[in-house]
Amino acid sequence: MNEYNVLDIISKKRDGKILSKEEIRFFMEGVSSENIPDYQISALLMAVYINGMTDDELFEFTMAMTESGEKLDLSGIKGFKADKHSTGGVGDKTTLVVAPIVAACGVKVAKMSGRGLGHTGGTVDKLEAIPGMRTSPETDNFIDIVNRVGMCVIGQTGRLAPADKKLYAIRDVTATVSSIPLIASSIMSKKIAAGSDSILLDVKVGSGAFMKDVQTAELLAEKMICIGNRAGIKTAAVLSDMNEPLGYKIGNSLEVEEAISTLKCEGPEDLTNLALYLASNMLYMSQVGTIEECGDKAAQALGSGAALEVFRNFIDAQGGDTAVIEHPEIFPIAKFALDVFASESGYIEKTDTEKIGNVSVELGAGRLRKEDKIDISAGIVLTKKTGDFVESGERIATLYTNDEHKLISAEKLFMDALSFSDNKPEKKNIIIKTIGLFE
Amino acid sequence: MNEYNVLDIISKKRDGKILSKEEIRFFMEGVSSENIPDYQISALLMAVYINGMTDDELFEFTMAMTESGEKLDLSGIKGFKADKHSTGGVGDKTTLVVAPIVAACGVKVAKMSGRGLGHTGGTVDKLEAIPGMRTSPETDNFIDIVNRVGMCVIGQTGRLAPADKKLYAIRDVTATVSSIPLIASSIMSKKIAAGSDSILLDVKVGSGAFMKDVQTAELLAEKMICIGNRAGIKTAAVLSDMNEPLGYKIGNSLEVEEAISTLKCEGPEDLTNLALYLASNMLYMSQVGTIEECGDKAAQALGSGAALEVFRNFIDAQGGDTAVIEHPEIFPIAKFALDVFASESGYIEKTDTEKIGNVSVELGAGRLRKEDKIDISAGIVLTKKTGDFVESGERIATLYTNDEHKLISAEKLFMDALSFSDNKPEKKNIIIKTIGLFE
Repeated sequence: MNEYNVLDIISKKRDGKILSKEEIRFFMEGVSSENIPDYQISALLMAVYINGMTDDELFEFTMAMTESGEKLDLSGIKGFKADKHSTGGVGDKTTLVVAPIVAACGVKVAKMSGRGLGHTGGTVDKLEAIPGMRTSPETDNFIDIVNRVGMCVIGQTGRLAPADKKLYAIRDVTATVSSIPLIASSIMSKKIAAGSDSILLDVKVGSGAFMKDVQTAELLAEKMICIGNRAGIKTAAVLSDMNEPLGYKIGNSLEVEEAISTLKCEGPEDLTNLALYLASNMLYMSQVGTIEECGDKAAQALGSGAALEVFRNFIDAQGGDTAVIEHPEIFPIAKFALDVFASESGYIEKTDTEKIGNVSVELGAGRLRKEDKIDISAGIVLTKKTGDFVESGERIATLYTNDEHKLISAEKLFMDALSFSDNKPEKKNIIIKTIGLFE
Repeated sequence: MNEYNVLDIISKKRDGKILSKEEIRFFMEGVSSENIPDYQISALLMAVYINGMTDDELFEFTMAMTESGEKLDLSGIKGFKADKHSTGGVGDKTTLVVAPIVAACGVKVAKMSGRGLGHTGGTVDKLEAIPGMRTSPETDNFIDIVNRVGMCVIGQTGRLAPADKKLYAIRDVTATVSSIPLIASSIMSKKIAAGSDSILLDVKVGSGAFMKDVQTAELLAEKMICIGNRAGIKTAAVLSDMNEPLGYKIGNSLEVEEAISTLKCEGPEDLTNLALYLASNMLYMSQVGTIEECGDKAAQALGSGAALEVFRNFIDAQGGDTAVIEHPEIFPIAKFALDVFASESGYIEKTDTEKIGNVSVELGAGRLRKEDKIDISAGIVLTKKTGDFVESGERIATLYTNDEHKLISAEKLFMDALSFSDNKPEKKNIIIKTIGLFE
């Protein structure tokens, strides 16, 4: 590989030129082998951040990251394997509801999920709130569970796209995280390596999401769809609203509780609607039927309790205590609870959802650094949400934590996140739009 | 200094925003104290490379580098202190001629010079070709020599603008060298720290210079003039042609020989003209008289032998053997010499001067890395230059080296650097233009 020179590659991207497949491969091999030092990686990343990448470059960049590690071989799984990915939000327990619905309709979900970081939670942390739940079974066992139960959710191994891991660590400390092509390639490199036949991307938009506006979210979705389809994986995206937390519960065991309620058809409307919408689209992508038929099947799987049954088997297969389904009181309760009351009367006009996510981190439910421990029982239960009218002195939420000292700061931060108005704000639809599915 | 955050600073520049003086200072202190890791420095440098800096930012960036180290206190020197700086070329021994002329006219030259790197040579290396010559006297001695002799030239100490040194080392390996603001601030941070009252910049333009075209060279000159004047130092620039080597000799002792010939009024026309032009402008900047009077004084100093006398005293004061002036045969002779002959008849139409510089490095006269040793006797003596007619088989140059194995590759590289034509090319004037002096 001596025919390429890292300085030439950096110079090209610096000058806004297009890197060849071979140059991108050379660079990524240097990243993986640690032959390219961090300061050269960060120089290239900054040049990419500012000058962007063409669709060809982006595809090659992503595939080079995918191929830096192993690719899951899911050929042992019978039937169509559908995957989903959320770009991250607050209270987003959607996977726990969607996957059982899809699996109940006969489509396999063999999913790798991430952990929470910053204001956003992660599915693996939530699952681990269930006593006994194992989230890192071996591949053979993973495939066996999917075949038997219809679904399995495990943590991401470091063996998938290790170059992405290295690049992300550098992006994190060089102000190069928020780049559309870099985000798109980071997500898709792992999704492609994860081996499913289709990917439905749930791109969150709003105050609690990384993408604050629809336009940017749409661009990200389009780039990811472009990469996925070119890699031979049927890819589409749903843009969903994240201007308020999803559902009423935020925190790990709290969110599992709410997911279970939803699987019992007793869940909040926004979560139920989003889960059914995502599930129908995943079924449609799996060629189960027309979109209407898929919608009916999803509703049927939820309404009949079939999805809840899948969830029960899934927990059981991964070693978890299924008693949590009938007896959520098994979940450990946080030592301290503080009710938050409205200081004025009026409609909740807006929620700074990222701040709500930060309150949850403050209470112990999330982590600021990858190495931080989380408290599975900590979190927030909302009583009122955007658009609700509250009387002065009425309870808006309850905060849960095992660290008493955090209650006051968390309460202040929580109140800072809300704004009130005399006028009832217009209700936003949880589904903003779907991209790449019906065109 | 906790009020600033390096990620915020990188993000601002990444997004093309303007950094405040305080942010720039915070960054530079982090560079000096090594609190900011290399990968963050390179990310900022790439953002600066692509998005540029305003004149305000550039000034603050330069001053922060200047103030990262010590500033030479030249107050012990009586009279006006004029400095010059060349952006680097091939065969550029101008300082060795200009400084004695200026000093002979009563203006002090207290100069710090650099070493050669890549295809360009450095004045300090050339001076060290003189037996016994010391180029790192203590400051007190430096000032004493300037007061007694009128001039002194020493090597740059690491104590001047250490942040520039650190930044340059990172730029060198991250493809961020060739940025106008970064070049301007790097040069000017050291020049301002070097404490003179005026600086005349000799900005080289052409195939042997870093600036290949007049427009870019002009921009660089303007930025440096802007910084210098704002720092309270009278600053101007001369753009001079570097489309062929300056004079006929390239290499360290060879160039000292040619400088001495020039001081004896027996030098090549281009070098003599450039030296007189730069000297007159330096005298004019020192308010010695009108530009015509300064021109006369410079010519007088050269013609009368007064400049040669200053040069003799200067060598003596810095411990060098003044016998080299009358007896250049004292210089060690390279073991191997190879004449290069023309393979065709015609005019030398163009010279790729950077390649000629590289031939000189190949022969041992220069260095590719800072830590490389140089061979003071190696180099090139040209017999013919651009515009000259050569008969097939006529000698064009002689190559000198102590490493016989280099002769063949050097000869090939040398011939590659020349192109021939049946038509006589137009003679270029050594002086292209002057900026910042007469407006």
